[in-house]
Amino acid sequence: MTLRPADIDFEQRLRADLPEDILRPMEPRYLHEPRGRWQGQSGLLACPRTVEDVAKLIRHADAAKVGVVPYGGGTGLVGGQVVPEGPAPLLLSLERMNQVRAVYPQENVITVEAGTILADVQAAAVEAERVFPLSLAAEGSATIGGNLATNAGGTGVLRYGNARELSLGLEAVLPDGQIWNGLTRLRKNNTGYDLRHLLIGSEGTLGVITAATLKLFARPKSQATAMLVVDSPQAALSLLSMARDHFGEMVSAFELIHRQGLVFLEEVLPDVRLPFVGLPEWCVLIELGLSGKGTAQDALETLFEVALEADLTSDGVIAQSDAQSQDLWRVREYIPEANRLIGSIASHDISVPLGALSDFIATADRRIAALGPFRINCFGHVGDGNLHYNIFPPAGESRDTYASMSTEIQGTVHQLADELGGAISAEHGIGRFKVADLERYGDPAKLAAMRAIKSALDPKGIMNPGAVLRD
Amino acid sequence: MTLRPADIDFEQRLRADLPEDILRPMEPRYLHEPRGRWQGQSGLLACPRTVEDVAKLIRHADAAKVGVVPYGGGTGLVGGQVVPEGPAPLLLSLERMNQVRAVYPQENVITVEAGTILADVQAAAVEAERVFPLSLAAEGSATIGGNLATNAGGTGVLRYGNARELSLGLEAVLPDGQIWNGLTRLRKNNTGYDLRHLLIGSEGTLGVITAATLKLFARPKSQATAMLVVDSPQAALSLLSMARDHFGEMVSAFELIHRQGLVFLEEVLPDVRLPFVGLPEWCVLIELGLSGKGTAQDALETLFEVALEADLTSDGVIAQSDAQSQDLWRVREYIPEANRLIGSIASHDISVPLGALSDFIATADRRIAALGPFRINCFGHVGDGNLHYNIFPPAGESRDTYASMSTEIQGTVHQLADELGGAISAEHGIGRFKVADLERYGDPAKLAAMRAIKSALDPKGIMNPGAVLRD
Repeated sequence: MTLRPADIDFEQRLRADLPEDILRPMEPRYLHEPRGRWQGQSGLLACPRTVEDVAKLIRHADAAKVGVVPYGGGTGLVGGQVVPEGPAPLLLSLERMNQVRAVYPQENVITVEAGTILADVQAAAVEAERVFPLSLAAEGSATIGGNLATNAGGTGVLRYGNARELSLGLEAVLPDGQIWNGLTRLRKNNTGYDLRHLLIGSEGTLGVITAATLKLFARPKSQATAMLVVDSPQAALSLLSMARDHFGEMVSAFELIHRQGLVFLEEVLPDVRLPFVGLPEWCVLIELGLSGKGTAQDALETLFEVALEADLTSDGVIAQSDAQSQDLWRVREYIPEANRLIGSIASHDISVPLGALSDFIATADRRIAALGPFRINCFGHVGDGNLHYNIFPPAGESRDTYASMSTEIQGTVHQLADELGGAISAEHGIGRFKVADLERYGDPAKLAAMRAIKSALDPKGIMNPGAVLRD
Repeated sequence: MTLRPADIDFEQRLRADLPEDILRPMEPRYLHEPRGRWQGQSGLLACPRTVEDVAKLIRHADAAKVGVVPYGGGTGLVGGQVVPEGPAPLLLSLERMNQVRAVYPQENVITVEAGTILADVQAAAVEAERVFPLSLAAEGSATIGGNLATNAGGTGVLRYGNARELSLGLEAVLPDGQIWNGLTRLRKNNTGYDLRHLLIGSEGTLGVITAATLKLFARPKSQATAMLVVDSPQAALSLLSMARDHFGEMVSAFELIHRQGLVFLEEVLPDVRLPFVGLPEWCVLIELGLSGKGTAQDALETLFEVALEADLTSDGVIAQSDAQSQDLWRVREYIPEANRLIGSIASHDISVPLGALSDFIATADRRIAALGPFRINCFGHVGDGNLHYNIFPPAGESRDTYASMSTEIQGTVHQLADELGGAISAEHGIGRFKVADLERYGDPAKLAAMRAIKSALDPKGIMNPGAVLRD
């Protein structure tokens, strides 16, 4: 099952069968990935306009045994979008398939093409007086197709679920070039195996998602944001529990932030306004969106008082305006960028059962300290049990000094997540970066089933070769 | 790939390798299904105690090429649990694997074995001061394993989702006898293909679910029920829209009932108290569960007033006590039993996009009327676009008189659902009853992918042979 390169011969066959401008000159931006771990090798770049174009491209690739890399916004953090070695692939960018095909406000449904930028999907929802609640740092360039292929998470998962839960139907091209027209707007559909959920999260290894029908939601009548100081991650979880006792599903975001993240912001992004003078060890960002009576701001003030009384918080800021609310969100949203500027030795995207979360942080801190005097920026979606636990060199030192330790550090963190019943990837996926970890920590029966499914649907192994599973 | 019967030879091999009491004498109850369409042929009955027992049984079946039918509560409505023809199968009843393995109230998670009765899962949740919101008429005998295998729906889907959405992890035995230990309690887990969602809804054709981790939810602080008269299904949808504008996700049930259902109750179940003297053409059952301030009863009273003013309802009953609330629910819950006692010619479980729901009912009514003077009982989960559109003989006549028309009637209803972008099975699944319909209305690319997956995971075709897909 050795693949062949996307050579001149292959290119000529594509040119003969497709509209002239579908093939484009390769550009360097397609060959980078945000963490700079790999440089993708150059190949052929195709920018199809229609699902039929995609089907033709895949059929040619299947016939010629050429690898195909579906490309969204290029913002993935695990290298799913670059092929650093092996025969040169066909890079299939969905960027021209970026239309909102239809909005059904009464049904709370939107149909969009895979290349639509996430922020544009959000904007189309707002125009229909609705919300599309998938929200993540890269939303200005990530595409909905990539979000679905990787089952993206973000800050809205607590209330609304991952990309997976926000989808109703898909249109996709399968590895043999057949078009699956599964663009249903149905809320319930028990007609056979759930191909939608199989493609979502398969990172382009089982087909190319070309369009999707997505769920929209009513806009909360009243929304408010606060940042509250907590003693510990455990106190954060207790505070979340209290917030949910009061407001149920209306708690729409609950993000944990460690002081290290605030220190990084001060250091490299001083324009980001911090709401505290003395930086707290831990704090949480809470967002509340109310549908019923009352204002969310009053509700957060009540929560703050009750939490203060229960010793779950000691200080806090409740935004008094939209501008203040945006300021608080900016603190959370710029932490990944600050991390990038500081330069991590190893970054992680783990999840553990909620009951093990405190234990994870305490134990990981201890084990990492035993390896060296590292700085740890631990932050993330604490209500989902999902932490970004990232390791940085000591202040004033370069990551390069410690580059050789990154594998050991990562092994330590992933090992602990596994010990505690957790996952080595909560929301970023496997890509090429975590293939070995998946083999190591994955359940053998599940891995065998995955391989059988991959072989059955993509017997030549053309779809995103080397991602998720290797030969 | 012809299967072999579960004969004496096979039985002896099982007896030699398994604890003595795993095999039990077959009983007639395992060979019936609730709608009386098929009589299952007798085979070997195994009642394993552990996942290891199940794995052994499957490995023997695999080696001997004997078909295996996983059996839950036997309440499925599409014949997924009975094999009417072909070689005698091994009937694998999970009834002894009925333990709640663990409850994690802080995490809102419960781990249960597949043979646990749904009502027992609900009760275990209540004991932990939580809710497990899957709720359906057969909950007193249906098992959670069967619910997951068929992706069961019911009245809680509107707020909480199908069985699929309520699961976090699975333990299962795959067709080759390997145990997949996927009993994670994680809210986020992007480590490879989603085997969980593939098994859920595959109706036992890709493996046997032996245990599951499930989501629990906070109990609403205040709950209330009302039955409101509406002019039409369209008015029902507008009323739902209004209710959601006011209360967002807190609308926890919204069921449409046609007068025919109330007439049937009067006729065959006169003990069920009806809340109206003159029976309305259409009414809806609404349940509201509030987490925030205020009582749900007050909220429903407000909704009633606003809806009255907007001409969306003309009359209604708001339960003033738990007993009254139960009375209202009983009306809805006994309609399927009344249908059974009257005896339908054809029953349907279709879904359509919400925007097509009114059109579906009007057109279906017209097309069915053109076939004969039938009584139509249309009811169901209108907010999910899921209707049970069931056809009965004229008053005083027997279903047998019209039995020969059932195929034509079903074809008419399924054809219309398909025309309107709907599904021929919303929540009951395919089983053996809708295999031909799936072939007819299913997307060819999806069907091909399903067959490839089935062959890859179950090359000998031993798992629930003839269900969902036929050779």
